[in-house]
Amino acid sequence: MPWSLQEIAQHNKASSCWVIIKDQVYDLTEFLPSHPGGSQIILKYAGKDATAVYEPIHARDAIEQNLDASKFLGPVSKEAQQSLAHSKEAAVKSEDELRVERARKALPRLNRMHSLQDIEDAARSVLTKRALAYYSSASDDLVSHQENMRAFSRFFFNARVMRAVSTCDPSTTILGYPSTIPVFVSGAALAKLGHPAGEVNITIGCHKTSIIQMVSSNASLSPAEIMEAAHPSQTLFFQLYKHKDDARALERIRNVERLGYKALFLTVDAIVAGNREADIKSMWVEEDESYDGDEDEEASLEMGGTAGNLVADDDRNMTWEKTIPWLRSVTQLPIVIKGVQSVEDCVLAAKAGVDGILLSNHGGRQLDYSLPPIELLYRLRKRHPEVFDSTEVYIDGGVRRGTDVVKALCLGARAVGLGRPFLYAQTAYGSYGVVRAVQVLHREILTVMRLVGASSVADLTPDLVERVDWQPLVTASKL
Amino acid sequence: MPWSLQEIAQHNKASSCWVIIKDQVYDLTEFLPSHPGGSQIILKYAGKDATAVYEPIHARDAIEQNLDASKFLGPVSKEAQQSLAHSKEAAVKSEDELRVERARKALPRLNRMHSLQDIEDAARSVLTKRALAYYSSASDDLVSHQENMRAFSRFFFNARVMRAVSTCDPSTTILGYPSTIPVFVSGAALAKLGHPAGEVNITIGCHKTSIIQMVSSNASLSPAEIMEAAHPSQTLFFQLYKHKDDARALERIRNVERLGYKALFLTVDAIVAGNREADIKSMWVEEDESYDGDEDEEASLEMGGTAGNLVADDDRNMTWEKTIPWLRSVTQLPIVIKGVQSVEDCVLAAKAGVDGILLSNHGGRQLDYSLPPIELLYRLRKRHPEVFDSTEVYIDGGVRRGTDVVKALCLGARAVGLGRPFLYAQTAYGSYGVVRAVQVLHREILTVMRLVGASSVADLTPDLVERVDWQPLVTASKL
Amino acid sequence: MPWSLQEIAQHNKASSCWVIIKDQVYDLTEFLPSHPGGSQIILKYAGKDATAVYEPIHARDAIEQNLDASKFLGPVSKEAQQSLAHSKEAAVKSEDELRVERARKALPRLNRMHSLQDIEDAARSVLTKRALAYYSSASDDLVSHQENMRAFSRFFFNARVMRAVSTCDPSTTILGYPSTIPVFVSGAALAKLGHPAGEVNITIGCHKTSIIQMVSSNASLSPAEIMEAAHPSQTLFFQLYKHKDDARALERIRNVERLGYKALFLTVDAIVAGNREADIKSMWVEEDESYDGDEDEEASLEMGGTAGNLVADDDRNMTWEKTIPWLRSVTQLPIVIKGVQSVEDCVLAAKAGVDGILLSNHGGRQLDYSLPPIELLYRLRKRHPEVFDSTEVYIDGGVRRGTDVVKALCLGARAVGLGRPFLYAQTAYGSYGVVRAVQVLHREILTVMRLVGASSVADLTPDLVERVDWQPLVTASKL
Amino acid sequence: MPWSLQEIAQHNKASSCWVIIKDQVYDLTEFLPSHPGGSQIILKYAGKDATAVYEPIHARDAIEQNLDASKFLGPVSKEAQQSLAHSKEAAVKSEDELRVERARKALPRLNRMHSLQDIEDAARSVLTKRALAYYSSASDDLVSHQENMRAFSRFFFNARVMRAVSTCDPSTTILGYPSTIPVFVSGAALAKLGHPAGEVNITIGCHKTSIIQMVSSNASLSPAEIMEAAHPSQTLFFQLYKHKDDARALERIRNVERLGYKALFLTVDAIVAGNREADIKSMWVEEDESYDGDEDEEASLEMGGTAGNLVADDDRNMTWEKTIPWLRSVTQLPIVIKGVQSVEDCVLAAKAGVDGILLSNHGGRQLDYSLPPIELLYRLRKRHPEVFDSTEVYIDGGVRRGTDVVKALCLGARAVGLGRPFLYAQTAYGSYGVVRAVQVLHREILTVMRLVGASSVADLTPDLVERVDWQPLVTASKL
Repeated sequence: MPWSLQEIAQHNKASSCWVIIKDQVYDLTEFLPSHPGGSQIILKYAGKDATAVYEPIHARDAIEQNLDASKFLGPVSKEAQQSLAHSKEAAVKSEDELRVERARKALPRLNRMHSLQDIEDAARSVLTKRALAYYSSASDDLVSHQENMRAFSRFFFNARVMRAVSTCDPSTTILGYPSTIPVFVSGAALAKLGHPAGEVNITIGCHKTSIIQMVSSNASLSPAEIMEAAHPSQTLFFQLYKHKDDARALERIRNVERLGYKALFLTVDAIVAGNREADIKSMWVEEDESYDGDEDEEASLEMGGTAGNLVADDDRNMTWEKTIPWLRSVTQLPIVIKGVQSVEDCVLAAKAGVDGILLSNHGGRQLDYSLPPIELLYRLRKRHPEVFDSTEVYIDGGVRRGTDVVKALCLGARAVGLGRPFLYAQTAYGSYGVVRAVQVLHREILTVMRLVGASSVADLTPDLVERVDWQPLVTASKL
Repeated sequence: MPWSLQEIAQHNKASSCWVIIKDQVYDLTEFLPSHPGGSQIILKYAGKDATAVYEPIHARDAIEQNLDASKFLGPVSKEAQQSLAHSKEAAVKSEDELRVERARKALPRLNRMHSLQDIEDAARSVLTKRALAYYSSASDDLVSHQENMRAFSRFFFNARVMRAVSTCDPSTTILGYPSTIPVFVSGAALAKLGHPAGEVNITIGCHKTSIIQMVSSNASLSPAEIMEAAHPSQTLFFQLYKHKDDARALERIRNVERLGYKALFLTVDAIVAGNREADIKSMWVEEDESYDGDEDEEASLEMGGTAGNLVADDDRNMTWEKTIPWLRSVTQLPIVIKGVQSVEDCVLAAKAGVDGILLSNHGGRQLDYSLPPIELLYRLRKRHPEVFDSTEVYIDGGVRRGTDVVKALCLGARAVGLGRPFLYAQTAYGSYGVVRAVQVLHREILTVMRLVGASSVADLTPDLVERVDWQPLVTASKL
Repeated sequence: MPWSLQEIAQHNKASSCWVIIKDQVYDLTEFLPSHPGGSQIILKYAGKDATAVYEPIHARDAIEQNLDASKFLGPVSKEAQQSLAHSKEAAVKSEDELRVERARKALPRLNRMHSLQDIEDAARSVLTKRALAYYSSASDDLVSHQENMRAFSRFFFNARVMRAVSTCDPSTTILGYPSTIPVFVSGAALAKLGHPAGEVNITIGCHKTSIIQMVSSNASLSPAEIMEAAHPSQTLFFQLYKHKDDARALERIRNVERLGYKALFLTVDAIVAGNREADIKSMWVEEDESYDGDEDEEASLEMGGTAGNLVADDDRNMTWEKTIPWLRSVTQLPIVIKGVQSVEDCVLAAKAGVDGILLSNHGGRQLDYSLPPIELLYRLRKRHPEVFDSTEVYIDGGVRRGTDVVKALCLGARAVGLGRPFLYAQTAYGSYGVVRAVQVLHREILTVMRLVGASSVADLTPDLVERVDWQPLVTASKL
Repeated sequence: MPWSLQEIAQHNKASSCWVIIKDQVYDLTEFLPSHPGGSQIILKYAGKDATAVYEPIHARDAIEQNLDASKFLGPVSKEAQQSLAHSKEAAVKSEDELRVERARKALPRLNRMHSLQDIEDAARSVLTKRALAYYSSASDDLVSHQENMRAFSRFFFNARVMRAVSTCDPSTTILGYPSTIPVFVSGAALAKLGHPAGEVNITIGCHKTSIIQMVSSNASLSPAEIMEAAHPSQTLFFQLYKHKDDARALERIRNVERLGYKALFLTVDAIVAGNREADIKSMWVEEDESYDGDEDEEASLEMGGTAGNLVADDDRNMTWEKTIPWLRSVTQLPIVIKGVQSVEDCVLAAKAGVDGILLSNHGGRQLDYSLPPIELLYRLRKRHPEVFDSTEVYIDGGVRRGTDVVKALCLGARAVGLGRPFLYAQTAYGSYGVVRAVQVLHREILTVMRLVGASSVADLTPDLVERVDWQPLVTASKL
């Protein structure tokens, strides 16, 4: 029973909500409240074709994974297909799309990219407003996001001279897997918003430069799609958002084990959605109605209720006592806790016997005023240095320079993750951009190691770093 | 003896000062020096009709309450009435009024308001310059006002993960009265400057969201008018400015007891008027004469003398020894001291056996360089934690985000007051705006509580907060 | 032998330098190297009429006091007189003079002046570039000048409430002489640059408001001229720059004793000229030649040598052991040391038995990076509180608000001096401006005293002030 | 065999790379990877005439010193010569060159230069973009560069008054050699980029003012050329970049000994090239191609590899144990270590018995986040004051004012080096500019010494300086 556009168009409200995706019709009425991105965005397309907005931010099999088969209503009619195709063709490009097209043509050559900031600047010029809002947004007033970067500026080097550094090796291992530099890709998601090939750009780039990619549960490609693009010898880690239903969580773990992922990074700092205003607001960018009195405003007040439903399926009752033992009992993969934000929890994590701790505040996207990871690392070093002996410690958030990486290693980090910079790199230049970003970091790290007097990562010790008592003047360039 | 405009016009100076308000003539000659707002503003309307400037900033019965009946000179004549009505109609709108009208039409829809800042921005666009000056002004160089907000930015979270927060309840009680969130409306006054319905907007909004309103003595509606608008089950507190004459003070207390107010917040930080320059200057906005030599400048020098008469009727001789026992002796209502600004006075207040202490510097509107309340709370927690055991402690001033509220609760506050944000909310969207503001806060508080690992306000403990030793970069957006 | 302009014009170089002042001819050849303002400025007028630039910055008898009678060459000829008068009349006004004339007409009325900043803004609009450069300039990079003001912002109040302050008295005595507020005028010089009546404006204003003026040695009026304008009952202090020749110094002391000055403020922070670049550069404002090769540049290199000659006559060898006893031996007047910049010297001054110590860095005009006086006062309070018991301590530099004054008194200052604000006040509004400035301060001080819980200056104690560990955001408005 | 342009043009790639310099042809194919400035810049001129870019940045004999004679291919043909000369003449000046020409004509007269900042401003106006990029660039985000200057602002004076300073002598000795002020020229290189006479301008200026020049290995003139310009009595030091081959290093040492240089400043902070992005990017200034797809981008990725080859000939295996004894064994010259960046290395240097230690981070051009030298000096003073007894200590980096110099001397520095300011001085005004710069410093130092109460450098003691706990507001003018 192929559907006509007229029939579909009647299901345009919360009480009956159908959408078309790639010429198939889906009934999302019951799914609405559990949509991780909120119901409002779906309702904007109720009764209409949502393909264009759905595709860049969902894995190939996202809808099949999340919707009961009974809600697959089948294809649209032939006439509807033609009509949709025609609409797509005839669609007038928005001003923003035209701007992006022009910017793509003016993109500087890759060999002009000398820093991650250069690459970010290039990427910003070719991102749609909506995509930029998703990539760059952070929670509330962006304080943690901004301070993540700024915190590094309070750490200076006690550089040592007159040390033999003609040979200098920045390589290390992470959970036993080799990496050319002490850097990995930290759960960057929705890469297709920036580039049609999506996360696979990062996978290829990591292979070429021999660093490790941690794949996000929220990637715009499925774990399988990404693993398909990887080289057989390549190491990939998986960022796990645990489902509240242990059986569903186990299913996901078995899947990534089967695909060959080498470690689980259990995300613990995102059990509810952070308040990313720029992202939330970008939904409304093109509309511009103004307030027309009070009558229909009661409706708008439902926002308070919506918040409670976000990320509704994730496990909000994880505990050290229950969750880690369970995880240990179901998998042999190394377990890393991603999103630890206090010294106390580092100690508990070590006690729980995890293989690694990733100090992170989710790039400032979850809790505003969460401590900058480099500050937390510094506190951990001072108050509980023994944690570094029993487990690997990593940080992510705000890393933009080789100096940042080396400072973190001096304070005890095994390796350092970067997220946004790789999203920007693949946005502007696909996999070549990712390679370039790693090369830039490699070059910077090597230079810094030599200039502080280190010939290997083992030489990077706490005495090489001093936290100063003033705030250097750093231009907060791009937020 | 209905008065003609010509007759009235002759009483246009300090030695004989009549004004018309809603077609009634009043002799304010003797009242002049004790007018809380100063004599100059009255003298601008001496011999003229002052209705338009009087109404938005005075309660219905203000003039009757403050003026001896012998000074009510009776109505204007019929001709005068017609003439005044005609003048009002024919009045050319000022540029500022026209701007406000246009802005009202361009006001964004309420569902675009995602933060208190959004709401403030909307309100600022539709406030007259004069009203904005009153709402936004603070004393001297706005340092305390600004630092009230900025101080929160030095408090970061030691967020805890792996705690069960699937159920999370932000509700609490204040002086035993329940509130859905640990937030109350703190004495915001002159609401009619922003919206014709005035403080009642807040009353309705508080009822819909089940939070408590503290009503200001300086409201543009009387305590009775506000209570009339309240739901019978609704809790309202009263902000008391104690009259220097105990009998007059008692009369006011009896009145609010009778009306059903549930607590007295004795204001102790405003015994003289703060130096709010923007507000003072707004009186002159439309005039633009320039200096024309020395001859009549002696007159202008009287400013020094005027200052001494401001708020002349408030009790400037209150003491812990005298005032609290007296208050206890005359009323059963819980007593809260509003405007405590030092740790020492917190200790004295607790010793005096008050029911609550509101750490406040009046939103920076009284003494510039008074400590930010969150800083004071932090000092109290460190130096006299026992105070929290014997009395409830609240703060107000600078609270704009759920993170601010949660930080204050972690440090020991029972609840947190907001003033200006609710004035802005009702200015732009009436009672709906107030509801929206509470919902925004509710949503933010809930998110933050979960992300720091708390499932109830009891879980918000001092160890979750760290005062950092650097100043985060926070844009001081609007002052 | 009346001189023709042609004859005079031949003496236009360092080897023979004559100038005309008020139709009299003077031979300045030998005086050149000892001119306090440097030889270059005189050489610009060698052989010409210098009246216009001489008058506003010299006391009536300056030339007679400093030049040997043999150098008075007598009057110019009648023809010359007519020619000079004609030139003066025909002189085209400069753009800057025309701007100032327009600004004078647009000056806001005095009753719009609500703060010292308002008055400064008004004054800046009507000052010539040259005069503004003199008034506002400070040494090097203006750091001490700016930090003088900014330092106050780190001191917050622990305001006390519930104290009886219905009567509140800000009056005090300075060296036993009464003052309505704890404020005095600190050695502001060259007042005629801003207003034709010069320092006398300040004298009259001080009389009307009953505060004390300290008269500068560098005033544009002589000590006698200023005393003539004073009321018989009025207290004036004298700021002494000690001549290196004790006899000459004594002559000056005898003169001011005879005139009735009540104390000597011995200036010790200005034994050489500070590097006030804006002032130095203002000399060149109107010239705009560009570099034309190397040939005559050797000449310009003499700058290094000029510096050595500035203030050449002041005593650079004063010591605690020698100078104070000498001063004591020659005068009965109280002795205050003006320009103490370290705790150690406060102790030495007290030990030397002076009557007062004025902590001052000359408004930042002498040594850049000299400690802000309020910071020095704070250190003195902490490290040597006993100094306050044996001598009066004052500060000046950066005081602009009543809060500043009250903070200084809390920390132990007897009174506080202001310089520039009074220069600006008299510039814009003559003596009325000075009165207004005092009234503004009076009003602010009274308000602040009450709001911190003080009813007299004796109540202003160190516990009311806390130095905070962050830097409040203060707009450095005008530098 | 004189070469035709056609023949030469064929050798335009890495596999065969010829260039023309002053009508001579050189084969640089094998030299490419070891070019201190990287191979890319040479390849831009492969097969072409490179004279214009070669000359300003190389010493007279640079090519002869570094290239095997077999690679000197002989002169171009007569026709080629004419053609090259003609090309040079016909060359259209770039916009930047025209701007510089105009700016040269508008350069202000030298006697308007009252501070080093004035001189820098003047120089910036007449530098080509490329030259400015070289002079002003620093590593990464310019943090160390900027903080070098900013760090001085946290040091204030405890100025002492009432001390005899009528005579005041700022002279000192450095390694026993007299200097009129405690200032020397620190290894400023590539002076010809700013002025055709190059480093010789500095040599002449130093002679005229009797201060000492340290000559850089990277000067655009050879050590011999510079010594030729010096006065026989003049002291010059040599900044040594040690070649990894001891024999080659010794050869260089013997050469400067022979020429009469008086000390060796062994550079230890520049064993690899710092990441000076502005400088790196300036190479591409005039090109503006945009990204045209992926095909040829692999090439660009070679950047990572290039980095390893920079400064390839310098000794990266120097150690305290090996290098200092070797140096002592081969020369009698005093040895100073330039580029010490930690307290620990100061102690090691003193232990190694060097004659001097220059605390320096290479003007922020090597390791970003290296401690500002004045901060390091402060730490050394606090933690290891005995170092000052056994060896002379100097600093360079960020010194722009007499106050900076005096602060460093108070903390124990023997003298202070300046680099960029002298490059700017000679750029704008040749040797006259250098003289002026020294005079400005002389004047400022003398003023500051007197105002802090010092009559000789011996009076500059640690108690005169206090490190404050706030950050003064200093405009970071030019970076």
